[in-house]
Amino acid sequence: MKALLEALTSNRRESIAGLLAEMEAPQLADLLESLSPDERISVWDEIDTQVKGDVLVEAHGEVRAQLIEASTPDELAKAMQRLDLDELSDLYDEVPADVIEAVLAGMDAQRRIRFELVREYEQDSAGGLMDVDAIAVRTDITLAMVLGYLTLYRTEQGRLPDQLDAVSVTDLDGRYLGRLALADLVSLDGGQRVYEVMDTSLSPILATMPAVRVARLFEDQNLVSAPVVDASGRLIGRITVDDVLDFVRAQADHTAMAVAGLDEDTDTFAPALASARRRAVWLGINLVNALIAAAVIGLFDATIERVVALAVLMPVVSSMGGVAGTQSLTLVIRALALEHINPANRWRLLRRELAVAAINGVVWAAAVGLLASAWFGNTNLSLVFGAAIVVNLVAGVTIGTLIPLVLERLRIDAVIAGQVLLVAFTDTFGFFVFLGMAAWFLR
Amino acid sequence: MKALLEALTSNRRESIAGLLAEMEAPQLADLLESLSPDERISVWDEIDTQVKGDVLVEAHGEVRAQLIEASTPDELAKAMQRLDLDELSDLYDEVPADVIEAVLAGMDAQRRIRFELVREYEQDSAGGLMDVDAIAVRTDITLAMVLGYLTLYRTEQGRLPDQLDAVSVTDLDGRYLGRLALADLVSLDGGQRVYEVMDTSLSPILATMPAVRVARLFEDQNLVSAPVVDASGRLIGRITVDDVLDFVRAQADHTAMAVAGLDEDTDTFAPALASARRRAVWLGINLVNALIAAAVIGLFDATIERVVALAVLMPVVSSMGGVAGTQSLTLVIRALALEHINPANRWRLLRRELAVAAINGVVWAAAVGLLASAWFGNTNLSLVFGAAIVVNLVAGVTIGTLIPLVLERLRIDAVIAGQVLLVAFTDTFGFFVFLGMAAWFLR
Repeated sequence: MKALLEALTSNRRESIAGLLAEMEAPQLADLLESLSPDERISVWDEIDTQVKGDVLVEAHGEVRAQLIEASTPDELAKAMQRLDLDELSDLYDEVPADVIEAVLAGMDAQRRIRFELVREYEQDSAGGLMDVDAIAVRTDITLAMVLGYLTLYRTEQGRLPDQLDAVSVTDLDGRYLGRLALADLVSLDGGQRVYEVMDTSLSPILATMPAVRVARLFEDQNLVSAPVVDASGRLIGRITVDDVLDFVRAQADHTAMAVAGLDEDTDTFAPALASARRRAVWLGINLVNALIAAAVIGLFDATIERVVALAVLMPVVSSMGGVAGTQSLTLVIRALALEHINPANRWRLLRRELAVAAINGVVWAAAVGLLASAWFGNTNLSLVFGAAIVVNLVAGVTIGTLIPLVLERLRIDAVIAGQVLLVAFTDTFGFFVFLGMAAWFLR
Repeated sequence: MKALLEALTSNRRESIAGLLAEMEAPQLADLLESLSPDERISVWDEIDTQVKGDVLVEAHGEVRAQLIEASTPDELAKAMQRLDLDELSDLYDEVPADVIEAVLAGMDAQRRIRFELVREYEQDSAGGLMDVDAIAVRTDITLAMVLGYLTLYRTEQGRLPDQLDAVSVTDLDGRYLGRLALADLVSLDGGQRVYEVMDTSLSPILATMPAVRVARLFEDQNLVSAPVVDASGRLIGRITVDDVLDFVRAQADHTAMAVAGLDEDTDTFAPALASARRRAVWLGINLVNALIAAAVIGLFDATIERVVALAVLMPVVSSMGGVAGTQSLTLVIRALALEHINPANRWRLLRRELAVAAINGVVWAAAVGLLASAWFGNTNLSLVFGAAIVVNLVAGVTIGTLIPLVLERLRIDAVIAGQVLLVAFTDTFGFFVFLGMAAWFLR
């Protein structure tokens, strides 16, 4: 990587091409993502077309879009020919229609039918994650015959499917019955029949199962691959752990980026103007929140004019509520993702959060109340300040707990919307409670 | 799960035990984590000791600690006997010393030596992730002989290692040479020799490699398992994709929880007092920040008294800086994790962020400046307000970009400390710039 960056800086074309030829698709995608948009195109042009399809699959959204735009339709069609059908399906909506047509035209009829099948399912479902290269055998043949079949399959197809840890066992109608592990195939007597040794403990995955549940299944059962069936129980594909791992990583990325209103597709090195436009929306949303809070403060300008210490202390009230609320929000979002929350424990959780807020509210309110009293020599002010902190902490925690529960019902992504809603509330409400109580009691 | 929750509510012991017996360890861990601490213990007592070891491995930190505390040493020792050595190593520091001794006493000498080997490596390194059940064969035997060896291995050990997708090939000194895929073993002619078909393209993983890099390797190369070697190249174990998947999930969990000052080990349903104590620290840290910001406001109380609109508008200045800074912070933390940042593009990134901040700063400052002008009918105030927003946005973005770069050098977790440092800065600096300029220009 280092040698490559040096070659790029000094623009030595021959050594660049040589170094690129040694790299695999994921490394190439990483390299491209860490370059500026201009450098990116010049490196892209040097990459072997054979590898470009895999690089596109590995690249994140915005970078991928840029690379697609920089390629000719012919080149794209060639690059995409070697991809698995699930990968092809991922790129489907992002490449021009004529490229897709060229790729489809190059497929044999069977592969085209299978591709249409994959396309039918949502990207974030088992059907969207699956590949259609599942190998199936019948129950009544011997293990030795399975070995013979696999040898034949390999000779005919050139290779066995990736991450092949088991072959599926199906009945005459193609319905899934169980699986035969390669580990059994290599360590059991070849005279045994498939039905004697096949594993029926794993339930096949329904193609419509959401991808998050598929990931949990793989994690819980330590799977390498799993069979996918349609509604009638017919085997239509299999999901492999590498795709699950990519999905889990993409989800984690999404969560980490969403709290800042960013997208996991964001190009780290996008041009300033494009980045500015994309981030402006998030700043605008937060600005609206801040202005609403400002309007609330504005209601009490006469009070602030009289007791200027209120202006000094009011950000403390709002920030404490925001921090406590964020903790509840984060905890509940995670518990929901792990499916640890059910109707039975929902209200217990809220009660516990309220108790936590009350305890911390009283403790910290007492501390800062004393401090404010020493600072401004005004007992009434300190009492109002302490009371406002307790109230805003409890309110923040309540809202922080309820937001994800409500958003989940509404099927809105709590990671994106949760923090914004929470802070809008704790700021506005915090200022209102503190200044309102001050206006009332400090006359 | 539903049936079980009902049985729990109505306290029907027999049906509880029956339902628990049908569940696997990960589901049991999930169930336990979604119960209150009291219910948790009563369910734990009903779980078969044979399964308890696996349940402990699956459970998160605080819940795990509670379950360990609720078990007798005898029971723990029995539960832990069946675990893989890497799992045992994970639990090592959390169970009482006499339990560990009992488990070690029950091992044969070879297994004990291997366990000591695993224990030598950091938990977050390849050595900590690996298991020591790697199967190795020599180069000059035939594939048929490998099949015979695997059959023998299975007869002697009762089973083959989990997630076995390949056996390692070593020389007479045990040094790693390559690997033989089971997929090749089941589809190639048994008369071929290992050296003819073995795959030498995968570099073995050094036991000291950090786990994050191991995870990236698995993701990039779509691995199911990978050989681990010591410094002299000797094969000492193998890492399987299920442990990598767990690691990636735990890391994602850590990131999501850390932004709220929480720990991925947090028990969602811990008692209120324990939760309150743990969260108090985070609230305290944020309180100190808020008080420093308050002190800065206090410096300008005379100015606020004269122009109360300053108190109304100042939270807008601080929040805009915080939001813009958070975006830079998040982007840079992710780019660092993906290793997309290098000395060559570091400064380009900062320059781009500054340009983004300048663009958005000017646009939004103009908008809110006009708004403030209409609101308060004070042109000078609006100019100061707009200028403060631009300055704080640019400052926030600069600090947001630099914080993770600096923290990475200092080997401090930017996910935990980054947001706190950033907000401390954007609040304090934002108030100072706005009120300071106001004090100067609005005399």
